[in-house]
Amino acid sequence: MERLFEDIIVVNNLIDVKEIKIINPIFICVISHTETSRIPGLTIAGANLDLIQQTPTADAEFLYYGKCKCINGVPATPDGKPTPAIITRTALNIASIPFLVVDAGVKIKPSIPFYSFDLHCGNNILNNLAMILEDVKKGYQYGRILGEQLTKSNDLVILGESIPSGTTTALGVLLSLGIDAINKTSSSMPCNPHELKNQVIRSSMQRHNIKFGEFKNKPFTAISYMGDPMIPSVAGIASGVLDNGGRVMLAGGTQMCAVLAFLKCLKINTKNISIGTTKYILDDSQAGFEELVYSIDKEIGVLAVDLHMKESSKRGLKAFSEGFVKEGVGAGGVSIASILKMKGKINGSKLLKRIEEEYQLKIGQFFSGRM
Amino acid sequence: MERLFEDIIVVNNLIDVKEIKIINPIFICVISHTETSRIPGLTIAGANLDLIQQTPTADAEFLYYGKCKCINGVPATPDGKPTPAIITRTALNIASIPFLVVDAGVKIKPSIPFYSFDLHCGNNILNNLAMILEDVKKGYQYGRILGEQLTKSNDLVILGESIPSGTTTALGVLLSLGIDAINKTSSSMPCNPHELKNQVIRSSMQRHNIKFGEFKNKPFTAISYMGDPMIPSVAGIASGVLDNGGRVMLAGGTQMCAVLAFLKCLKINTKNISIGTTKYILDDSQAGFEELVYSIDKEIGVLAVDLHMKESSKRGLKAFSEGFVKEGVGAGGVSIASILKMKGKINGSKLLKRIEEEYQLKIGQFFSGRM
Repeated sequence: MERLFEDIIVVNNLIDVKEIKIINPIFICVISHTETSRIPGLTIAGANLDLIQQTPTADAEFLYYGKCKCINGVPATPDGKPTPAIITRTALNIASIPFLVVDAGVKIKPSIPFYSFDLHCGNNILNNLAMILEDVKKGYQYGRILGEQLTKSNDLVILGESIPSGTTTALGVLLSLGIDAINKTSSSMPCNPHELKNQVIRSSMQRHNIKFGEFKNKPFTAISYMGDPMIPSVAGIASGVLDNGGRVMLAGGTQMCAVLAFLKCLKINTKNISIGTTKYILDDSQAGFEELVYSIDKEIGVLAVDLHMKESSKRGLKAFSEGFVKEGVGAGGVSIASILKMKGKINGSKLLKRIEEEYQLKIGQFFSGRM
Repeated sequence: MERLFEDIIVVNNLIDVKEIKIINPIFICVISHTETSRIPGLTIAGANLDLIQQTPTADAEFLYYGKCKCINGVPATPDGKPTPAIITRTALNIASIPFLVVDAGVKIKPSIPFYSFDLHCGNNILNNLAMILEDVKKGYQYGRILGEQLTKSNDLVILGESIPSGTTTALGVLLSLGIDAINKTSSSMPCNPHELKNQVIRSSMQRHNIKFGEFKNKPFTAISYMGDPMIPSVAGIASGVLDNGGRVMLAGGTQMCAVLAFLKCLKINTKNISIGTTKYILDDSQAGFEELVYSIDKEIGVLAVDLHMKESSKRGLKAFSEGFVKEGVGAGGVSIASILKMKGKINGSKLLKRIEEEYQLKIGQFFSGRM
């Protein structure tokens, strides 16, 4: 019994996993685009500029269909490292967790039914304001409307994202809100391009004459200068859920820290929020995830799932334990919710087995020589 | 105890209301446009062509905000007969029933977060093919995807619509599927323009050389020639729900008959479908609702709610019992679900009281001299 949830790591003992009851969770995947992703070297999500723009769209389509319509093949790096959506899709299916995709300013509309927040794509923060303030407010307001509705049906709302270069905009938001996130953000690459990110953000802040903590009391303005459309949208959904008595799991790493920081600045009670992520985010020696989280909110519960990907027979999946991809599309949080909803009938290893099957079926065929 | 659900009329004794358990329902409002509504005299929904196009958009905004953004004021006829969305909104709020709006080819996008099925508006069936076949299939397929997700969270999916002139396209679909619906369809007007509808449909069928029952075995083609984007979308959601073990309530009158006929042609088991509507549809001596329903499906359960609108002190609401408006935006079905979910703590009269309060607050002010 003690080993029921052995693969869920309780990071700070603020949560008793055995006490968590999840009966009717839902996963919301918010997909967005920021032109910041055009800066070469920031992201692994997509082999070239075209593919980077299509990554959130491809992820959303993959969640529904197990294949993509916007691109030939599947979302994976040229050498077969798959999108983390493969984890998400598998975990959703195993535990029969419903999900919705929210288009919060994606560049290419996915060929699926999706929830629209009617937002523009984010601009390149190196040259422009990230978003018009009106869009920041709309994303948040529409999020609140959706969150209120979700809470009437679902006892846990898991929020994930897919937005290439989102850790860079997250860094900008965190700094302008007064959170020292320098060299603490995660990356989809084993060699975290901290210097490049720092340069981009430094240059952007200088351009607008923004100092560290400048927008501590103006969180909407912070997003407008440095953020992306995902952040206010996810924060809005969270706020709508919390205000109506629900529970939220922010499923992700650095980017969810930006959401959390934004919510804290709005003085929203975060008691019913947890963060759910993967062990690979925790283990990332080139980032400082725990330090970052607790500098935003000392009392936030943090869970991480061990998917035993180090032991995977598939090189593309094993790569997750070697610093590639690590997290995204809510993979960690959805895995945790899936294990909890199934009351321990699955664990990280069993989940991995199913992910490997999905990988073999959907992705392996494209990379048979290289896996 | 016997009088617990006194205001829910069980039309054909196929349902034992006391046995129905609804814990976690959700309402889906599908909004669409057909250019057929440009034919003068078909609809009361909107005082002129511009307003007709805005009616579904205004209805959707009204559900969320209790006011509209696309138009000044509220959706009501010039003399204060309100949209049935006022009933829907009140019933949803009383019973805390969540809802989503689906854009299935609406002309003007609502200023709310909405679920997009990425469909074109319907064409005027008098001159054109109603919809390209690809859109009929897409609406159905996207509906199935949404329906499957909803059933994981909700034990009843209530499906409503807002599409001006939808009873005319429904008539065309019913006839081409081999259902004799002539002079049996309802109308939002006390003087049902049957002759005009029959003319439109006759002319459209002749133009395409379509005979009664021509598309009995080709329901997608029937919609493509004679229908509108709402029908395959609602049918798709229903089918997705049913295939995954859920229950559906088709909330409406004539238009839901077209959905039902379409589903029957697809050989879908309708055991877990009911129809929920208002007493004013049943009582309509100028239509033949019951006859129509049972000619499509002898074994479908039909419920109707008595909202005692005849006794209303507000002229705009009393008009519902005098043949105006009668139903729409899922008003009847949502009222029924609301009474059932509240286990009889409200009835038709109590609901009317709350609708009158909402009317006074939101609409009465615009029509103070004329109510």
